[in-house]
Amino acid sequence: MARSPRRAGAPRLQLPLLCLLLQGATAILFAVFVRYNHETDAALWHWGNHSNSDNEFYFRYPSFQDVHVMVFVGFGFLMAFLQRYGFGSVGFTFLLAAFALQWSTLIQGFFHSLHGGYIHVSVNSMINADFCAGAVLISFGAILGKTGPAQLLLMTLLEVVLFGINEFVLLNLLRVKDAGGSMTIHTFGAYFGLVLSRVLYRPQLEKSKHRQGSVYHSDLFAMIGTIFLWIFWPSFNSAPTTLGDGQHRTALNTYYSLSASTLGTFAMSALVGERGRLDMVHIQNAALAGGVVVGTAGEMMLTPFGALTAGFLAGTVSTLGYKFFTPILEAKFKVQDTCGVHNLHGIPGVLGALLGVLVVGLATHEAYGEGLGSVFPLIAKGQRTAMSQAMYQLFGLFVTLMFASVGGALGGLLLKLPCLGSPADCQCYEDQVYWEVPGEHEDAAQGPLKAEEPDTQA
Amino acid sequence: MARSPRRAGAPRLQLPLLCLLLQGATAILFAVFVRYNHETDAALWHWGNHSNSDNEFYFRYPSFQDVHVMVFVGFGFLMAFLQRYGFGSVGFTFLLAAFALQWSTLIQGFFHSLHGGYIHVSVNSMINADFCAGAVLISFGAILGKTGPAQLLLMTLLEVVLFGINEFVLLNLLRVKDAGGSMTIHTFGAYFGLVLSRVLYRPQLEKSKHRQGSVYHSDLFAMIGTIFLWIFWPSFNSAPTTLGDGQHRTALNTYYSLSASTLGTFAMSALVGERGRLDMVHIQNAALAGGVVVGTAGEMMLTPFGALTAGFLAGTVSTLGYKFFTPILEAKFKVQDTCGVHNLHGIPGVLGALLGVLVVGLATHEAYGEGLGSVFPLIAKGQRTAMSQAMYQLFGLFVTLMFASVGGALGGLLLKLPCLGSPADCQCYEDQVYWEVPGEHEDAAQGPLKAEEPDTQA
Amino acid sequence: MARSPRRAGAPRLQLPLLCLLLQGATAILFAVFVRYNHETDAALWHWGNHSNSDNEFYFRYPSFQDVHVMVFVGFGFLMAFLQRYGFGSVGFTFLLAAFALQWSTLIQGFFHSLHGGYIHVSVNSMINADFCAGAVLISFGAILGKTGPAQLLLMTLLEVVLFGINEFVLLNLLRVKDAGGSMTIHTFGAYFGLVLSRVLYRPQLEKSKHRQGSVYHSDLFAMIGTIFLWIFWPSFNSAPTTLGDGQHRTALNTYYSLSASTLGTFAMSALVGERGRLDMVHIQNAALAGGVVVGTAGEMMLTPFGALTAGFLAGTVSTLGYKFFTPILEAKFKVQDTCGVHNLHGIPGVLGALLGVLVVGLATHEAYGEGLGSVFPLIAKGQRTAMSQAMYQLFGLFVTLMFASVGGALGGLLLKLPCLGSPADCQCYEDQVYWEVPGEHEDAAQGPLKAEEPDTQA
Repeated sequence: MARSPRRAGAPRLQLPLLCLLLQGATAILFAVFVRYNHETDAALWHWGNHSNSDNEFYFRYPSFQDVHVMVFVGFGFLMAFLQRYGFGSVGFTFLLAAFALQWSTLIQGFFHSLHGGYIHVSVNSMINADFCAGAVLISFGAILGKTGPAQLLLMTLLEVVLFGINEFVLLNLLRVKDAGGSMTIHTFGAYFGLVLSRVLYRPQLEKSKHRQGSVYHSDLFAMIGTIFLWIFWPSFNSAPTTLGDGQHRTALNTYYSLSASTLGTFAMSALVGERGRLDMVHIQNAALAGGVVVGTAGEMMLTPFGALTAGFLAGTVSTLGYKFFTPILEAKFKVQDTCGVHNLHGIPGVLGALLGVLVVGLATHEAYGEGLGSVFPLIAKGQRTAMSQAMYQLFGLFVTLMFASVGGALGGLLLKLPCLGSPADCQCYEDQVYWEVPGEHEDAAQGPLKAEEPDTQA
Repeated sequence: MARSPRRAGAPRLQLPLLCLLLQGATAILFAVFVRYNHETDAALWHWGNHSNSDNEFYFRYPSFQDVHVMVFVGFGFLMAFLQRYGFGSVGFTFLLAAFALQWSTLIQGFFHSLHGGYIHVSVNSMINADFCAGAVLISFGAILGKTGPAQLLLMTLLEVVLFGINEFVLLNLLRVKDAGGSMTIHTFGAYFGLVLSRVLYRPQLEKSKHRQGSVYHSDLFAMIGTIFLWIFWPSFNSAPTTLGDGQHRTALNTYYSLSASTLGTFAMSALVGERGRLDMVHIQNAALAGGVVVGTAGEMMLTPFGALTAGFLAGTVSTLGYKFFTPILEAKFKVQDTCGVHNLHGIPGVLGALLGVLVVGLATHEAYGEGLGSVFPLIAKGQRTAMSQAMYQLFGLFVTLMFASVGGALGGLLLKLPCLGSPADCQCYEDQVYWEVPGEHEDAAQGPLKAEEPDTQA
Repeated sequence: MARSPRRAGAPRLQLPLLCLLLQGATAILFAVFVRYNHETDAALWHWGNHSNSDNEFYFRYPSFQDVHVMVFVGFGFLMAFLQRYGFGSVGFTFLLAAFALQWSTLIQGFFHSLHGGYIHVSVNSMINADFCAGAVLISFGAILGKTGPAQLLLMTLLEVVLFGINEFVLLNLLRVKDAGGSMTIHTFGAYFGLVLSRVLYRPQLEKSKHRQGSVYHSDLFAMIGTIFLWIFWPSFNSAPTTLGDGQHRTALNTYYSLSASTLGTFAMSALVGERGRLDMVHIQNAALAGGVVVGTAGEMMLTPFGALTAGFLAGTVSTLGYKFFTPILEAKFKVQDTCGVHNLHGIPGVLGALLGVLVVGLATHEAYGEGLGSVFPLIAKGQRTAMSQAMYQLFGLFVTLMFASVGGALGGLLLKLPCLGSPADCQCYEDQVYWEVPGEHEDAAQGPLKAEEPDTQA
């Protein structure tokens, strides 16, 4: 039962050849373009007369490692809530992110660190590449369980490019502030994935409904992802900010915002839950909305109170989204959003962008003092007023939504190529389509039963 | 079956309203009192002429993140050993800690960093708030599975205040040294929870006995908590110490102490185990006692040998406590200690305080040289002798036990308020009382069976 | 059924006495020899006029913590893939590593930091001790499930000594470069364990075959180990390098190498998999080969392209090793390699050593500039040519293989001491031999069935 669609749709050589092709192309581009920068090259570093402890590594690497945990452990296990898709959630996250960070090192390098024809890499390129991988995994969450690895790799190939262009337009052309990526990462990743999921709409998906939920242990695995995302989000938002007070303040704001979104999530989940009971889906996801919502404003003088308020609002709205809007999204808009990324990344991302517009608009020399230059260089230099910078922020949001929608549509058409062979409607959310699943042979006899009772077969 | 007590005892609006009330009050107090400090405020930071890399963020934040992992992953998953209470263990840890760190930012701020009517926050307030959350979670461990989220939030509301007062008395009035919190965190949290559990004594608790143990996978989830606590404990004890040799030495001592407590635990567990077999309960908990026991003395010149000895002793005593004392505690003292916090935090905390008394009493100018001032400022200034400082340390332990006992008693009375509706005796250690549990509906028919075979239903 | 061999072979006092003996001896040696170094001793540190923020703690400790996570979480959970040996995998990893890091602090101290008759410890000794523990756990992987804790402790006792000697010969006598330990850690640990496993060959091991595989959830636990190892490997390889560009470059190279080995692993796994399906064993292990293969060359001017190529090669070779060579290893060479350490650490370690030979041989003043002295001091001083250094590197590999083989043989003979009582052939990969397993009593009746259906009993 798990075999036919695989044989039919996707010849066994497809994934191997695609991996080899992508890795080969990436390696060649690395050979031609990628070089160590002045902090990682033995010859360049030792020119300057600075102490080894001045190396940016010591100020960025700990944050990078926290982000790295979020991308691979956080996203991977958060998506492992599905009873029969744990291998796919963790495994494909691993594959996509590993490719995305190589590919985005090239794409982002072309746009941001191309000097003398070479891309110069350091811990900063590692942080940026992981950020891009995060956006790809957000999109993955919208189509989780309904696509194969070859399709996902092609999605990554396209999305990384569009992510890089959108990021370039916002940060370099519009000079928008978005350290934690409310726009560039969350809004972009979410709407790219949602539009893509719309194009791949499956009217017959209820054939896999019995596999779409969680089981007791898979919810605990998902909580590993949630908790690591929650813990390290302050590092995520602060990783690329200016050193000093900027990075310190961003971590603090994110910490407060997340704690408030957690209380908001528990409150709403119990309020709307059957018999006042809490729903793991809400706790696993909406509690994280506080990190998304301060992705833009976190480095600004948001104030601790502002962070709490924003976080609480985000957690509340996100929980209500899971309860009431997700069903509408599928019924009315034909968008099947497996992980509810619209509620965790889409809406909170847009709210975060708007919060940024607000906080930028309120920026004053009094509030930022000499620090204005490090947060809003253009305002400090008098090239923009706070209000005009706020308008640029708002325009950045629209640009992001546009790139995400068009990109997602293109991605959807790309993934529809028949040769890619996505799983049949009755095969969604099922690891056996792409993975050797232990215990499979023992109960091969009771094949059809398998899907109904995944845990007992394990 | 899981419903009636819920309906009866706790109206569905209770948790939502309590969360909203607590978050609203906290947010208002933040608006009135909480401000960025000179290292997180854009205007204040850029006054001074210091380099951005001097920001304390770079010396404290990595330790903070390790502590943060311990509080949310460590405590949460360590308590997930119960076969049917994984959601409650991880989920309520998440809720309580998220509230505790906001609330303790205010309480600790009032006592420690109130300048000009404002509480000034930075990475240090994040570390201290997480420490306070740790104490709350220790108390939670004593009553795990026998209380509802509304009760737990009220416990947190009270405990954080008493924690802050006790901490203020010890650190600011008595000028006691307790960087890793053998007294302020472990002893306080443990005896607060144990006295509270005594007040909530349930003579009929054996009705839930079949759910009080672990299952194979839940023990592995618990080991995730154990290992992360064990790994990061050196960061926990060293996070708030003076920079330089103090922080370095504390991490080193804790590392040695933990490694010895692990060997002591395995030795004792096999010695007292049936047929010489190891017991997961011992390994999951007692191996951590080495971190607790050097919470006070870790920053002092304990010597590596002293750390090994203290750790080994703590691991041994803790294991024997699980084997022999926990049953007595319930039978004789009517204290039902779900996680055995008395063995992991109570006794080792007291031993750690006494070890501190000893090591402080032995402090000499020879041993500390110029560093005496950074570890024992009062002794260095000649305001106290080593012996008098040791007496203050001892007095600090008594003060802590007093605050914890009285506080726990008050907490117990508070949680007994009938309106709070705790789970029925036959409903303890059962997630379904407060959570939507997957698979519940499928086998709703075999309701009564559920409890007996939690894993097969999952 | 689980009892007899235990009673017969290993008296219940064996493990307790061995733990007490080893801990006692270690503690005495610590008392005699181990002292704080100038960065951890209050008196010594405050002599110098340096700022507290200069303490090496701030440049090494974050890397140490990442390594610490790898050793305890990474190795422990990676080996938890076995359906009935999760307690043993995580628990014995915990025990062995806790002893190994104390014991290797002494052994490595004697060889590397013995000044004036004292071993001086700091964060560097913590890093080195954890590295040695890693080598022990690699060897553990080769004999996982076929040995008891007493045997494993004796193996550790011996292996740590030989590890220390081999490391001394390579780093101090031959002056070989091997920061990430392709030779000293991976090659040594793998071949020590493989030869040891050969000596302990069990012709009747198929009696436990039904327990040798994974179950659905145990594969997810193993992925926790894999992902944490993968994430933190850049910290592992860079932890002991020279500060500045060296550490920065090593992390970057490892990051690229790992991402490429991941794509190589997915490609090969799907290529050789039945019906083109991915195999969790490959993903869990071979994807990590990229970290091993740059263990020597990672700190050198490998170039990002070189890192990608090496990583891809390692992932590919490792996957093919799991598929084709492991069966041969058992059938032809009578080596039963439970975790396939030969494919993850053995072959990639040797390849990493050879890659080091190549990259060292290509070292030029142009490529390293002023930085040559920090990577290759002897070449910079003109005491060696790049070619002669390369030859020393090659010789270091042979020395390592020699020490590992002889040591493994000795270890095998030691572990064969009848008094140590290893599990019977029908009792391998079974936690019940050494652990109290929950649910055991309930279904004690269906004893024989247990092994066949581990998950349902849990």
